[in-house]
Amino acid sequence: MSTQKTFTLAVVGGDGIGPEVTTEALKVLDAVSAVHGVTFERTEYDLGARRWHATGETLPDAELEEIRKHDAILLGAVGDPTVPSGVLERGLLLKLRFALDHYVNLRPSKIYPSVGSPLANPGEVDFVVVREGTEGPYVGNGGALRVGTPAEIATEVSVNTAYGVQRVVRDAFARAQARPRKKLTLVHKNNVLVHAGHLWKRTVDAVATEFPDIAVDYLHVDAATIFLVTDPARFDVIVTDNLFGDIITDLAAAISGGIGLAASGNINPDRTAPSMFEPVHGSAPDIAGQQKADPTAAILSTALLCDHLGLTEAAAAIEAAVTADIEERSGAARSTAEIGDAIAKRAAG
Amino acid sequence: MSTQKTFTLAVVGGDGIGPEVTTEALKVLDAVSAVHGVTFERTEYDLGARRWHATGETLPDAELEEIRKHDAILLGAVGDPTVPSGVLERGLLLKLRFALDHYVNLRPSKIYPSVGSPLANPGEVDFVVVREGTEGPYVGNGGALRVGTPAEIATEVSVNTAYGVQRVVRDAFARAQARPRKKLTLVHKNNVLVHAGHLWKRTVDAVATEFPDIAVDYLHVDAATIFLVTDPARFDVIVTDNLFGDIITDLAAAISGGIGLAASGNINPDRTAPSMFEPVHGSAPDIAGQQKADPTAAILSTALLCDHLGLTEAAAAIEAAVTADIEERSGAARSTAEIGDAIAKRAAG
Ligand SMILES: CC(C)[C@H](C(=O)O)[C@@H](O)C(=O)O
Ligand SMILES: CC(C)[C@H](C(=O)O)[C@@H](O)C(=O)O
Repeated sequence: MSTQKTFTLAVVGGDGIGPEVTTEALKVLDAVSAVHGVTFERTEYDLGARRWHATGETLPDAELEEIRKHDAILLGAVGDPTVPSGVLERGLLLKLRFALDHYVNLRPSKIYPSVGSPLANPGEVDFVVVREGTEGPYVGNGGALRVGTPAEIATEVSVNTAYGVQRVVRDAFARAQARPRKKLTLVHKNNVLVHAGHLWKRTVDAVATEFPDIAVDYLHVDAATIFLVTDPARFDVIVTDNLFGDIITDLAAAISGGIGLAASGNINPDRTAPSMFEPVHGSAPDIAGQQKADPTAAILSTALLCDHLGLTEAAAAIEAAVTADIEERSGAARSTAEIGDAIAKRAAG
Repeated sequence: MSTQKTFTLAVVGGDGIGPEVTTEALKVLDAVSAVHGVTFERTEYDLGARRWHATGETLPDAELEEIRKHDAILLGAVGDPTVPSGVLERGLLLKLRFALDHYVNLRPSKIYPSVGSPLANPGEVDFVVVREGTEGPYVGNGGALRVGTPAEIATEVSVNTAYGVQRVVRDAFARAQARPRKKLTLVHKNNVLVHAGHLWKRTVDAVATEFPDIAVDYLHVDAATIFLVTDPARFDVIVTDNLFGDIITDLAAAISGGIGLAASGNINPDRTAPSMFEPVHGSAPDIAGQQKADPTAAILSTALLCDHLGLTEAAAAIEAAVTADIEERSGAARSTAEIGDAIAKRAAG
């Protein structure tokens, strides 16, 4: 339990539906804070497509340093079709994840009984993916030569270090230890990406000796996608690389109630910088500004945020409110704000 | 239509269930050949785990050169838990794909009405993935430093060239052109892997001008996995990189009747070397030698083989036999050989 009463929160609504869902997330956070006697002092940062069009900036270093001073960050979504692909993703979202050393990208997946799954028989799904957040093919190494000519060559370099793999693997084992099923699955592709894959495998085998009661297994990423649709209930904690984690967590979200419910935390477990919480979904520009987006994933991300700050009761209240809301969902469409209102009311009650 | 009557076939049963399913595939191929007046002269190559344990060899260059002289290759599966991960995959399977310039890795997905899908409402699924086969993260570039120490660093380099991307993209467009729906989806991750991703995107945009009646769209690989479970019927031809293709074709197989039905062709469209046909599934060592494996994927791979050799009637006969067999499948378990016998009988009939 935290004794801190006032927390500073940097808010980056971002692009597309990002600002809308963030508004609802903050509504719920405020409602819960009032009840639990804490305050979030918010600073909004105007970052994303609008800012880039206006100034050419994605995330100036001075602003990054300001954001760094906060207790946590709430982010909506990043990316817009009017901006060349990668500019905002690399220049804003990934810059935050890397600069603030968010090496644990935490993505829980759970099937709520009342929410439909595209799977005929999903079973009881309740697992968490621990996606590495600061290495792998996301490091931005690589480049291109003779661009636009028939002799063009483009490379992408996946960088993996014992330092980086060990710390995320140890975090994943600790999470498995705290869960009833005590199971950890490493997902990689060590039969092809032998250098990185063997580093991951050896690291998991070594750390496993520190956690003798955790059952460990390994799946190639291609096989993991099969099990995610044929037997997702087999998973408890999955630990994986940055890119494989990106891919399988979207799939995991899709099979368990949809991307509208998938929350995530970009965690710096050492607390040397603020952690950042965001829905797994993208900016969905096609429905932006129409109050059509489901804010539930953004709202659930504030539960992860509270949890990280030691506000366990507030986190539980948000989760309970979301669960209750989801259970009563009918086919009737509600606006983004209506969903936020309903959950905020429950969370405060 | 081919006028050639005798074809040479190199057969690599490989590991695990590979030899069993290959036996059935050959049974069906022989049955069909007899009817259609062609002959396959087979040479078996003892490659895989057994050979490696006995001699330390994976694929000696001299044997590769012998295999190269054939009209086509039929492969079962490669990989065994008694061999360090990657040794057989890189040293045998990928060596064949790269040396024989199999730049089109063709993987069709179709839902047979009578076969269950793990999806509640899959819709009418009938698409083909054109997976690049000779570049990307599969090239084997990269390495490791200070292995086994806390200072270890391991890299994997994805190499992409205009030459390599253009030829596979053009092949994919031509396939889309020959299909009724005339749709092509590029799957990549160009918001993060910007160098490779932009090369792919620019190439698709450029080649698209040569195929004005093909509708083109783009999906990030993470989003593609969502659509593969929520709306797989939207896909017609998917073109993608080697690693993304590996991942999404296992998922595609899983949602459409399972990995037991997924066939593939490693195609050299320029015919400068023999193409190679294999089931998408792996060696499944846990059920090897027990006559439990479903040989259908291997059998369907011989249909792709016949098609590639211009034996379109033989290909159609195999596909029809498989479709008829699948339609009559009940819950009753049949042995690998029983399935092969039943399909061979139909194919010859
Ligand atoms: C927007 C994109 C850069 C990001 C990623 O690839 O990590 C997103 O897909 C995610 O999963 O958070
Ligand atoms: C066995 C392995 C090297 C191979 C691959 O990754 O290409 C397999 O998964 C496949 O899809 O054919």
